[in-house]
Amino acid sequence: MTVLSPINLDPAVLTATDALGRMAEGRLTARDLVAACLARIGNRDPDVRAWLALSDTALEQAEQADAVPLAERGKLHGLPIGVKDVFDTFDLPTTHNSPLYEGFQPAADAAVVDLLRSEGAMVLGKTDTTEFAAAGRDARTGNPHDLAHTPGGSSAGSAAAVADMHVPLALATQTGGSTIRPASFCGIIGFKPSFGRVSREGAKIYAQSFDTVGWYGRSVGDVALLASVLGLDETLVSSDWPGQLRIAITAGPYRDRLAPESLAALDLSKDRLEREGHSVRSIDLPAEFEALDSHHRVILHREGQASFHNLVRRHGKILHDDFHHRVENRDGSTLRELAQAYDAMALGRIAFDAFMQDFDILIAPSAPGFAPAGRRPGDPVFNASWTLLGVPCLNMPVPLGHPTLPIGVTLIATRFADKHLLDAAKRLEPILNPM
Amino acid sequence: MTVLSPINLDPAVLTATDALGRMAEGRLTARDLVAACLARIGNRDPDVRAWLALSDTALEQAEQADAVPLAERGKLHGLPIGVKDVFDTFDLPTTHNSPLYEGFQPAADAAVVDLLRSEGAMVLGKTDTTEFAAAGRDARTGNPHDLAHTPGGSSAGSAAAVADMHVPLALATQTGGSTIRPASFCGIIGFKPSFGRVSREGAKIYAQSFDTVGWYGRSVGDVALLASVLGLDETLVSSDWPGQLRIAITAGPYRDRLAPESLAALDLSKDRLEREGHSVRSIDLPAEFEALDSHHRVILHREGQASFHNLVRRHGKILHDDFHHRVENRDGSTLRELAQAYDAMALGRIAFDAFMQDFDILIAPSAPGFAPAGRRPGDPVFNASWTLLGVPCLNMPVPLGHPTLPIGVTLIATRFADKHLLDAAKRLEPILNPM
Repeated sequence: MTVLSPINLDPAVLTATDALGRMAEGRLTARDLVAACLARIGNRDPDVRAWLALSDTALEQAEQADAVPLAERGKLHGLPIGVKDVFDTFDLPTTHNSPLYEGFQPAADAAVVDLLRSEGAMVLGKTDTTEFAAAGRDARTGNPHDLAHTPGGSSAGSAAAVADMHVPLALATQTGGSTIRPASFCGIIGFKPSFGRVSREGAKIYAQSFDTVGWYGRSVGDVALLASVLGLDETLVSSDWPGQLRIAITAGPYRDRLAPESLAALDLSKDRLEREGHSVRSIDLPAEFEALDSHHRVILHREGQASFHNLVRRHGKILHDDFHHRVENRDGSTLRELAQAYDAMALGRIAFDAFMQDFDILIAPSAPGFAPAGRRPGDPVFNASWTLLGVPCLNMPVPLGHPTLPIGVTLIATRFADKHLLDAAKRLEPILNPM
Repeated sequence: MTVLSPINLDPAVLTATDALGRMAEGRLTARDLVAACLARIGNRDPDVRAWLALSDTALEQAEQADAVPLAERGKLHGLPIGVKDVFDTFDLPTTHNSPLYEGFQPAADAAVVDLLRSEGAMVLGKTDTTEFAAAGRDARTGNPHDLAHTPGGSSAGSAAAVADMHVPLALATQTGGSTIRPASFCGIIGFKPSFGRVSREGAKIYAQSFDTVGWYGRSVGDVALLASVLGLDETLVSSDWPGQLRIAITAGPYRDRLAPESLAALDLSKDRLEREGHSVRSIDLPAEFEALDSHHRVILHREGQASFHNLVRRHGKILHDDFHHRVENRDGSTLRELAQAYDAMALGRIAFDAFMQDFDILIAPSAPGFAPAGRRPGDPVFNASWTLLGVPCLNMPVPLGHPTLPIGVTLIATRFADKHLLDAAKRLEPILNPM
């Protein structure tokens, strides 16, 4: 039997879709794929530090996977994935990068982990994160494009692991901008689905109105594959476009906080899309959108107040002061402001649906600029409003030719139009992120 | 040293507040309290079947509690509580009354359990529940007032345990009417706080927009004590009433589904309150409230679709068909209907706030009537709209003189006015539920 892989191809660089295709055709074994990922991690992770724990049974699991007959294989059979260390895993500790959870071993998988494993995916390990995906301790991970810079947070390790080709896919979460911003900083596809459509059970709660399971890949096809497995094929808006896409583009209400590279990414996107015949309209968002960021903060910290209450009571001074801040409501927001914030969130969703009647997607900044030096997670101001609106978001890298650091833009669709957004992103990927 | 307890007083019949007072004064030990509760359970539970598991270290824990100096004791020191078996407990299995979770042992406590234990409460055991507090398998628990009848669900065991004096307090949850309705059926105080103010982490998710931690006691003071411990002392509406309360009362939009006893409980409440000089206005709810129940169902089943997806994929036919129903969306609701339901929920919250400007509390039915025969959880039509609105609700028993079965009414306040509602309920308790 002839193996058709070209000599010297490193399976770790394959997309998930590519690897699955090769495994289905018998041109790649799960064992070789996992071995390649582990070798890549062995070479790179002493510098990148994406991982908090690695499975010590991964090769064994891969060998067992290779022995399963084709007909019995799930949609992700043999695929190694990374899991942000805020998701429970029955076979690896879940630390939330918190000293309070050092070595903590959950008894069961988070729902999304269970679902991916039931489709044949293998959890290669747990990735570093901002403490509780919220605040407190930063991840130690470096940006693979320049280790002196942050990969962004809170999903630092997952973003870096995918960007650095340790794994083709990794799970993230987004409560402010924790999926999209690291994707921009690391030059990969990041996807945050509509709020509430993928179970977040078994991921630690920070703000229950926002916490959303997200994920990373190196192609739109890969993140779409995971979306399909996770039940997002149904879409509110149909993807049968009569012709070219109707696209709105905006710098958003915080244009003055955008570095030149973010403005350049928006301009370049507009130029390239128009050159391909798509309709691109530069727009200003309705005035009430400017307040969404502060409403987001009120809800975030007030919901965090409930989420971290028991940890403050139980662990007192061991717990990082950031969490005491929330439990003590040091922002001083009132419950009336909280009610108003919830109402503004709901009215904003209705207003955004109406606004998007004229467009297939909206393009907006993913981050203020390139990944800053250091290890801080970064500023969520360009992400938080979309999280609050519960709309699906995808980071699309837009290469500017900068020597090291990448940048991206956010593609946004209306609520529950996840598949529509992914289909649009597939069409636009060769235009915005040409290989 | 003279012990002042009257001869033959069974500590199991004490309220939590009473027991805590006696323990603080040295007139009661935690060991005697726990022993009394266990004796009561030993006598009664073979018939009532409230418990799925009992702690086998409770007496030992109580002895240790008795040895703690007064100054180091928490607000619930030495108090035995029941915990609905959908909350994770590190020392007792959490089965969700599901064959899928038989013997399942979580690694950590749910946040609310952790918080109560950190204040000195002791988990006496886990109480029976409708499967996953959702559907599927019924609890085996009988109504202590008539064992041929249901205690209501899903929080069947917790309601029965408190009503039958197995424990003074027990944790419940409410997604439709799972806290309030069993309280009405069992003749106890049931409290469901405002949505989102108490962490639901470590309780299995059914519908993340609705799932709320609730609890039971045999006095308003007891449920208020737990509310205070859980962080609900802050209130949006002040409780400094100038004089008597301004009360609205309604049979709601489903008046034709009320049995005579529920109408009688409303009428009796109105008469008694007016006799005490309170202002009671019979009102009809705004017309749009009638649709809230169907919006509740759309959100409930669609969010359940995400919540049970992994269980369907993993366990196929072992899982009760009710959960397949949700995952397959057999209701056939569209994503547009889901978006509309979310919007109606938000607009309903705004409308209810406005409606309640003229009232301190609203009184509405807790259930269609007395607890029906059998073991089914009961009809949530009189609870679901309030859950959808996220408002605090309290079941107040209103004795009609019926020979066996109790009934109650629901006291409702505006969002985040939990303390206001509890203060009002304390004032109204001697009027509506005279001892």
